[in-house]
Amino acid sequence: MSLKKKPVTGMKDITPEEMRIRDHVISLIKETYGSFGFSSIETPCVEHIENLSSKQGGENEKLIFKILKRGEKLNLETAETEADLVDSGLRYDLTVPLSRYYSNNANNLPTPFKALQMGNVWRADRPQRGRFRQFMQCDIDILGDNSCMAEIDLILAMSTLLSRLDFKGYVIRINDRKLLKAMAAYSGFEEKDYDNVFIILDKMDKIGLDGVASELEEAGFSKDCIEKYLNLFKQITRDKTGVSECARLLGDFAESAVTDNLLTIMDSVEKSAVGDFRMEFDPTLVRGMSYYTGPIFEIVMEEYGGSVGGGGRYDEMIGRFTGNNTPACGFSVGFERIVMLLMERGYKVPGENERIAYLVEKGMPSDRMADILSEAARLRGSGKSVSVAQMQKNKKFQKQQLEQQGFTEFKEFFVN
Amino acid sequence: MSLKKKPVTGMKDITPEEMRIRDHVISLIKETYGSFGFSSIETPCVEHIENLSSKQGGENEKLIFKILKRGEKLNLETAETEADLVDSGLRYDLTVPLSRYYSNNANNLPTPFKALQMGNVWRADRPQRGRFRQFMQCDIDILGDNSCMAEIDLILAMSTLLSRLDFKGYVIRINDRKLLKAMAAYSGFEEKDYDNVFIILDKMDKIGLDGVASELEEAGFSKDCIEKYLNLFKQITRDKTGVSECARLLGDFAESAVTDNLLTIMDSVEKSAVGDFRMEFDPTLVRGMSYYTGPIFEIVMEEYGGSVGGGGRYDEMIGRFTGNNTPACGFSVGFERIVMLLMERGYKVPGENERIAYLVEKGMPSDRMADILSEAARLRGSGKSVSVAQMQKNKKFQKQQLEQQGFTEFKEFFVN
Repeated sequence: MSLKKKPVTGMKDITPEEMRIRDHVISLIKETYGSFGFSSIETPCVEHIENLSSKQGGENEKLIFKILKRGEKLNLETAETEADLVDSGLRYDLTVPLSRYYSNNANNLPTPFKALQMGNVWRADRPQRGRFRQFMQCDIDILGDNSCMAEIDLILAMSTLLSRLDFKGYVIRINDRKLLKAMAAYSGFEEKDYDNVFIILDKMDKIGLDGVASELEEAGFSKDCIEKYLNLFKQITRDKTGVSECARLLGDFAESAVTDNLLTIMDSVEKSAVGDFRMEFDPTLVRGMSYYTGPIFEIVMEEYGGSVGGGGRYDEMIGRFTGNNTPACGFSVGFERIVMLLMERGYKVPGENERIAYLVEKGMPSDRMADILSEAARLRGSGKSVSVAQMQKNKKFQKQQLEQQGFTEFKEFFVN
Repeated sequence: MSLKKKPVTGMKDITPEEMRIRDHVISLIKETYGSFGFSSIETPCVEHIENLSSKQGGENEKLIFKILKRGEKLNLETAETEADLVDSGLRYDLTVPLSRYYSNNANNLPTPFKALQMGNVWRADRPQRGRFRQFMQCDIDILGDNSCMAEIDLILAMSTLLSRLDFKGYVIRINDRKLLKAMAAYSGFEEKDYDNVFIILDKMDKIGLDGVASELEEAGFSKDCIEKYLNLFKQITRDKTGVSECARLLGDFAESAVTDNLLTIMDSVEKSAVGDFRMEFDPTLVRGMSYYTGPIFEIVMEEYGGSVGGGGRYDEMIGRFTGNNTPACGFSVGFERIVMLLMERGYKVPGENERIAYLVEKGMPSDRMADILSEAARLRGSGKSVSVAQMQKNKKFQKQQLEQQGFTEFKEFFVN
């Protein structure tokens, strides 16, 4: 078998230039979220296939990289389906493993438990520009808090992080799954159809009100329902007034606790947040995952033309592991998108060490070598980065390459 | 299918307490190796099965987690062997992917290229205490330097790291694969038997000289060879004098360039290293991987009773990808063992933020909530870590749990 130079389909090698930005973002995330009291945890990248196929992951469950059973467990001759060959897979998100983790460790964790997870996840999506089959996710979750303090905390932590990365002028859209259902009920849709209605509504950003109207029609829903539904979105403004207006229009279809909750979140965030962003009530916000049970939110940046993060409340997932429902709320920042945006804008990592290269001719006697090495060690002690490396025949080219890696100063040592 | 609470066999969930130490060690590694001019890179966790099965990985190739082909490529009915089902697997080390990375990116990288990799690897070993099927590896490699400057740089970087983690009194053992072969040749073993001889020699630490002698005998080697071989190890002292003595004893069997090289490495390190450790020439050091071609080294700590890291020169691996041989030398620190040792000795992460918990009664009006949140934000600005969380009914228990997570100060906020 011949060896392959390219990474496997849809995955990528990361260059030193990109790694410097990634490492910086990672440390800023750990620092910022840490200052909000989130504790880092980690789960294995490999998860039980039962947990990955438990209908918590929506469409992602079709995209699992499945791992072959090992040893005696693997019997090719009797295997009839994929399921006979597989007992684990690569995780497709960090939420399912977090739920398993919490169910396994709850006794040793405080209530509420504020978790920070950073790690790779894998999805066998069709490869496309800027979208990879292995990518880093970065989640914060608050488990065991049934109040909107959790949502507020998540939004504040995340906006603090984005402001430390110099992101400005972005929008945080918010809605509530319960309100979404109330709007559908008010318009006359049947409960069994909600999921289909929401999948179409979710396209609002791309196809507009008219597009949503015609897709709903094509799907066979009545004109009356559709008109009543879309009129809602025309009337409701995208601010706190809109939330109150929404409550008034829906009347008994919406619990006042739900709209009050949204108002409290928007109000508290606006009053205490740092950073240049705007909260927006978006009654058309759906978020893909069907496990959400309450408030949902999403960060939208014009520069990217899409979501760079989002999350929401999922009060019923952990109970599937533990038997006891545990309120839960999470937020995931689009790490890869953030890194891509920073690279596109030529972001310079602040406070990087000065990088010096010592180029040493081959054959340097060991006593002089020791002097060179000791000098390098002294400079490192004063906060500089010093690379001692063998001098190449084409010294000019070597220096050019090192400059690309951020080396700005060179010192040469010759044997004679 | 019912959901499973435990991690998959042989892998583990990482607690917040352990994560604090891991994160600290990771940032110290990035900082220290960065100050030596190593550049971070990353490769996908998933690698082509051809590359993983290329005989570079020795015994590890039997331990690969294999990933099922997807979609049309997977045809269960015609599949006869595992190979028909699989086109990729989880990497079992970082060296094979590094070789692929270098062959794919060499044009954009300086010569020599000094790479730092930190990442998980997977081996389906029999689970045992302290040994897991997913674990973090941390490698530094220098590609394109055929001189011992590479070995010296690696050893100095690694000993600087260990001294920053307060490790003292450890030993760095060094040997050379070429010397190992010269000793076998001198003793009269045939070249085809070297690998078997070395596998037995490698057990010296565990079974001693007599044990090695009897295992060599059992394997059918001649008494003359065995006696001549073991006499070498009895005569050679474990210091620089031993290297010279070894050269004298072996005569024409050993090239003087090989022993001179070892002496230069030991000498340069001793003269310029910081940290409390000792270099030791160990003519019985083998290191498992057969891809090593020159100097090999290993860190041994009495506390652990075993190796906590090691590496060596492997000048022939990258050529298998590129067609052109590229000199290469690497060092891997036993990240998981380092973390375990630090936890056992009750290591405190230096300079951790003071952690304060604000416990807020449920139902706090949003204007007062905003004041509380703003106060927390101000404290964070002054370098403290403040967690705002919902107050629980059993406040005493909540505080106890938070203390376990490192919170030392509490402030309570009541609605009335």
